[in-house]
Amino acid sequence: MPWKLPRDLDTPALVIDLDVLEANVAAMATDLDQHGLALRPHAKTHKSIEVARRQRDAGAVGLTVATVGEAEVFAAAGFDDLFIAYPLVALGPKAKRLRTLAEHVRLRVGVDSPEAAAMLGHAARGAPGIEVLIELDSGQHRSGVTPPDAAEVAAACRKAGLRVVGVFTFPGHAYAGPGSAACAAEDEARVLSEGEGALRAAGFDVEVRSGGSTPTARHASTSRGPAGALADATAVVDEQRPGVYVFNDRVQVALGRCRPEDVALVVAATVVSAVGPGRFVVDAGTKALSPERFDYLEGFGSLTDRLGSGDEDGATIARLAEHHGIVESPAYRPVLGEVVALVPNHVCPVVDHFDSYVVTRNGRVVDRWPVDARGRLT
Amino acid sequence: MPWKLPRDLDTPALVIDLDVLEANVAAMATDLDQHGLALRPHAKTHKSIEVARRQRDAGAVGLTVATVGEAEVFAAAGFDDLFIAYPLVALGPKAKRLRTLAEHVRLRVGVDSPEAAAMLGHAARGAPGIEVLIELDSGQHRSGVTPPDAAEVAAACRKAGLRVVGVFTFPGHAYAGPGSAACAAEDEARVLSEGEGALRAAGFDVEVRSGGSTPTARHASTSRGPAGALADATAVVDEQRPGVYVFNDRVQVALGRCRPEDVALVVAATVVSAVGPGRFVVDAGTKALSPERFDYLEGFGSLTDRLGSGDEDGATIARLAEHHGIVESPAYRPVLGEVVALVPNHVCPVVDHFDSYVVTRNGRVVDRWPVDARGRLT
Repeated sequence: MPWKLPRDLDTPALVIDLDVLEANVAAMATDLDQHGLALRPHAKTHKSIEVARRQRDAGAVGLTVATVGEAEVFAAAGFDDLFIAYPLVALGPKAKRLRTLAEHVRLRVGVDSPEAAAMLGHAARGAPGIEVLIELDSGQHRSGVTPPDAAEVAAACRKAGLRVVGVFTFPGHAYAGPGSAACAAEDEARVLSEGEGALRAAGFDVEVRSGGSTPTARHASTSRGPAGALADATAVVDEQRPGVYVFNDRVQVALGRCRPEDVALVVAATVVSAVGPGRFVVDAGTKALSPERFDYLEGFGSLTDRLGSGDEDGATIARLAEHHGIVESPAYRPVLGEVVALVPNHVCPVVDHFDSYVVTRNGRVVDRWPVDARGRLT
Repeated sequence: MPWKLPRDLDTPALVIDLDVLEANVAAMATDLDQHGLALRPHAKTHKSIEVARRQRDAGAVGLTVATVGEAEVFAAAGFDDLFIAYPLVALGPKAKRLRTLAEHVRLRVGVDSPEAAAMLGHAARGAPGIEVLIELDSGQHRSGVTPPDAAEVAAACRKAGLRVVGVFTFPGHAYAGPGSAACAAEDEARVLSEGEGALRAAGFDVEVRSGGSTPTARHASTSRGPAGALADATAVVDEQRPGVYVFNDRVQVALGRCRPEDVALVVAATVVSAVGPGRFVVDAGTKALSPERFDYLEGFGSLTDRLGSGDEDGATIARLAEHHGIVESPAYRPVLGEVVALVPNHVCPVVDHFDSYVVTRNGRVVDRWPVDARGRLT
């Protein structure tokens, strides 16, 4: 997988291969559409208005975001259907910001506790348009309630004057390792179905059963059988929220969810030091790549040309300092000053370190896009 | 160590206790001054013009930075003596930016290979003011050469028309664990002395022997004996480049380099979910805190009031997702919506995630400072 980098890059730089990105955007949209699943991609991955426009043009029904700040950025760019898939606590400045948002867009918000429901209801007074999805824990054990508890949270929402429209979950345990996605997708479908049942039993309509992650999105689509033929309407996911698929990363390759050639983003870094047998140092450290670790991956990233080669351990970023990446590479010995293409483990936190993307086709720069929602943490 | 947070914070937020910061700035300046050591603090920690001004007012001779972009930010703010303590490869856009910088400030740059020396010499044509320090590896095995190789690099610098003014090293192995700092400081002094010797033997003057890190800075000062009394002028460090000391962090407490009450910065986060026996979830994840791990620390951060309590494992951020921090806390059970103060493991990458600091005294907001050089990675 040789990656064509443009010349004269100021490194470290985020570089997009636009052909690959466009293919990824189209493939997910087509796959989900063929199975009657709505696509509401998570914009926290790219934080980019340009990427989001391409997702919308390909058929996305709206966007998912993680924070009020991200929602504000995309709302200002004309995206009018946003789901903050997060158990928001609407206190202080966030309450006012949420009200303002809800005046301009169709806004859905996650809730996973009666306390948060009461706060959101208070915040939403004067902005009755806010819709709520109850978050369920499908096995990641991060946030979200169990299906039996969903009805209590929904009742608190109703009491607070909020309209409950459905349930959602993030099956993050799909990232536990190769082979985890199938079970996580099953957990997701089961929990969403049980949550829906609990809500219906308590007298709620359930319009949306939202799930998804890049590893599980296609499991959900294939488990539904022929397009449109729903064996059991209460047992399915009807909206998917994958994020990473637009770029892919080393984790997705390791999980078998994409091919090495489907990776649309690299960090371009310059070889700055210690070029010797088996190692060299690049100018991408913890402030460019992320020090996030995964049990099934050595180190913090790969050289693109070794990605998925079966000999990856021979070309990994073994250590990171803030501005140094120490690459162990027995097979490849670059020259000092050479610019190499690195595939990060997990692309989402990496993007958030940069202010812009260098957009390329065939190794030539065709555009530069801002990371519009970078750092919108609140 | 109760931390007074201001009300109505929009979280996650970087919060400075200005009293503590001022005390930290003063203490390091005083300690080094008493031992005749120059202080050139590393601005990569804070990336803040306001903090740098305070360091300068306390006696810093100049600033250390990690990138050309950081140097540009501080040069524009009037800091006229900057050391890019990094093995720069001055190719492409960086070459031009370096020349422009050197026209406006006294600029020192790190070099650790003959190849980089040639490139920097080429880039510096027309900007003869650029001074070079040869980087030595004192035990971290990241970048830098061994003392015997320093003369070859210095000769390449001279050949390239660059003025060599000294040697520098970063004794990063001081962070290996509690007790590592003393040995790392010894390594630093030895390697700088040997490097100086190699350069002098090759006919170079050595004006600067620059070392330092927060854990070793005071070792260097105390190992020099009485103020100004240098037993062996070739065996000492004469400039220190600590960075973290302005804020301190969980690592510094664990290494015994500061007290819990010397921590001047926390990440304020809201309890958003899953408040139950022994755990809760806050809105600070890998995009706010950093997923950087240290062998001698559990998890990714502490609640301030448990920091250094000897029972820290009971109140740590055990897992991080992008916007979720899962805190294991048997002893303390907050209410949903409560804002807690978290001490990150390593403060430097954390600061780089935020656009601004909330500056407080006694729990009241007194200012808001931008993280001026945030994201200046190139």
